[in-house]
Amino acid sequence: MSDIAPVRWETDRLILVDQTVLPEREIERDYRSWQEVGAAIRTLVVRGAPAIGVAAAFGVVLAARTSHAATFDGLLADLETAIKGLAATRPTAVNLFWALDRMRQAAVASRALPLDAMRARLLAEAQAIRDEDIAANRAMGAHGAALVPPNARILTHCNAGALATAGYGTALGVVRAAHAQGKVALVWVDETRPVMQGSRLTAWECVREGIPHRLIADVAAASVMARGEVDLVVTGADRIAANGDTANKIGTYSLAVLAAHHRVPFYIAAPFSTIDPSIASGAQIPIEERDASEVRRVGGQQTAPSDSPVFNPAFDVTPAGLIAAIVTERGVVRPPYHF
Amino acid sequence: MSDIAPVRWETDRLILVDQTVLPEREIERDYRSWQEVGAAIRTLVVRGAPAIGVAAAFGVVLAARTSHAATFDGLLADLETAIKGLAATRPTAVNLFWALDRMRQAAVASRALPLDAMRARLLAEAQAIRDEDIAANRAMGAHGAALVPPNARILTHCNAGALATAGYGTALGVVRAAHAQGKVALVWVDETRPVMQGSRLTAWECVREGIPHRLIADVAAASVMARGEVDLVVTGADRIAANGDTANKIGTYSLAVLAAHHRVPFYIAAPFSTIDPSIASGAQIPIEERDASEVRRVGGQQTAPSDSPVFNPAFDVTPAGLIAAIVTERGVVRPPYHF
Repeated sequence: MSDIAPVRWETDRLILVDQTVLPEREIERDYRSWQEVGAAIRTLVVRGAPAIGVAAAFGVVLAARTSHAATFDGLLADLETAIKGLAATRPTAVNLFWALDRMRQAAVASRALPLDAMRARLLAEAQAIRDEDIAANRAMGAHGAALVPPNARILTHCNAGALATAGYGTALGVVRAAHAQGKVALVWVDETRPVMQGSRLTAWECVREGIPHRLIADVAAASVMARGEVDLVVTGADRIAANGDTANKIGTYSLAVLAAHHRVPFYIAAPFSTIDPSIASGAQIPIEERDASEVRRVGGQQTAPSDSPVFNPAFDVTPAGLIAAIVTERGVVRPPYHF
Repeated sequence: MSDIAPVRWETDRLILVDQTVLPEREIERDYRSWQEVGAAIRTLVVRGAPAIGVAAAFGVVLAARTSHAATFDGLLADLETAIKGLAATRPTAVNLFWALDRMRQAAVASRALPLDAMRARLLAEAQAIRDEDIAANRAMGAHGAALVPPNARILTHCNAGALATAGYGTALGVVRAAHAQGKVALVWVDETRPVMQGSRLTAWECVREGIPHRLIADVAAASVMARGEVDLVVTGADRIAANGDTANKIGTYSLAVLAAHHRVPFYIAAPFSTIDPSIASGAQIPIEERDASEVRRVGGQQTAPSDSPVFNPAFDVTPAGLIAAIVTERGVVRPPYHF
């Protein structure tokens, strides 16, 4: 059972584990305004589709607390400003917009309450989003573990673990549950350039939980598959279209193609809050492009000429046809997908 | 025309461009013993299959110069020690063994000469290996450029450029020649973790030569192909088996699978010195595994827990069936391959 709590509330503030400095340093930071939370999402202090949804929900709580409005309409206007600002931090993961919508609805539903009661109601809503996320992850773990054969060698990409969620994890939640059942021989951890969420975060979670793992450069995944040493691939998701096309961390699509070539099943694990039934296919998912410096540098180390142009998409889209199943909190969904 | 000379001889010493500090610093280092040259090959000061062959040949020249032997047999024994030591530096690229064999043969053929004349003969042989490599690269460039369509978007991996050879390059030689013919719209440069030869070296060569390029994390190659923005892939090689199976930098096989999936032609460019007809298939090519620190760190930056186990193969094998053609100095070879 994971005791990693990357997003937690304490009395009057949000506390985030700073994921930009792991694994070298384990630091928690305090946040007392929605603007600070927005900056934390933008700079990847907190990342992972479910985790940024939960963090943004608490950002709305902070906006309600810091608002000087004396009327419901005034407070709602301040919340709308915060919601708009938080929604502008990152474009791809839909959980962010889903959580913000839910907070807006909770505010509107509290119209008749005194403002302090409305603030308490918003805090309760954010805590519910957090608690439901952990519960969904545990349910996904149970459903997904049934897909894992004995002595499994599982490859995962990026970090879809406790750190990417309110706790426990989506793809790594499946790994955790299968590990608890004694079925995991090895987890292949892709380092996941350019931000290294695999080597920095997933490997750190594996070390902490005693899950047997081996770290590889992303480019080595194909070789490991060719050697017959991968039984399944499981990753998280940032947005799933109605037809099952799935946006996730850049490199996921590459793994899905490689898995198909090597006849290795490729699974997605994600809660229903990651599904966006409003869009028909992956072609409509906006893909965030991040700064060139992520590719030209690693930490303080320059790894490319400063004048080399860079293309740095943070996500890619895996067509539904390459996805053997999607593990959700309601069960395992098989193709054809209709969300 | 490239003026990059990564391996050159001056009067009494070998001079290497230190490829471990590019692109931040351009430093040349002097070598006066074969042991120093061996260390330079092992630590990647010089890398790239043709370049390490040329460097090792000059290492044998240095062994002949530093030997105190007064007889042919004594000198030959010292050379054999150097050849054995140089051959033990890296296992995969066959050009190293090919160049050392050629130097041994040159020594044996000089049996009747005075020792100083034999030393001169060895220097001439190493210089011939160097000059022939450049000539082979230019011939490959001419043959390979014919495969490049107008306005081509070319993806390459690792560095198979001037720095990987005596000059001009194999895969990047094809790019250079096509660029000189005005046919290159863009070169996609894979950064090539873990040692970053793409971002550190290939991007540096492109900047220096004014070749339009864009750097990507290795994980983004599949996305770029899916967007229809890659017309062909071309890489170098470290060893080619008799059946065409090709060992090259880790990640090459991954690209070959991705190229096949996206119906993008995948080419290898390599001189005949890279072909090892003594082995039937890629299964017999020894694959070097390098230190875990290459994956756990980038420069001074720790990117993974220090106790996470690592699998760090430096090369992979691309089956001949995924290779549309092999560009050699004698022309373009199409499957089925029989070397």
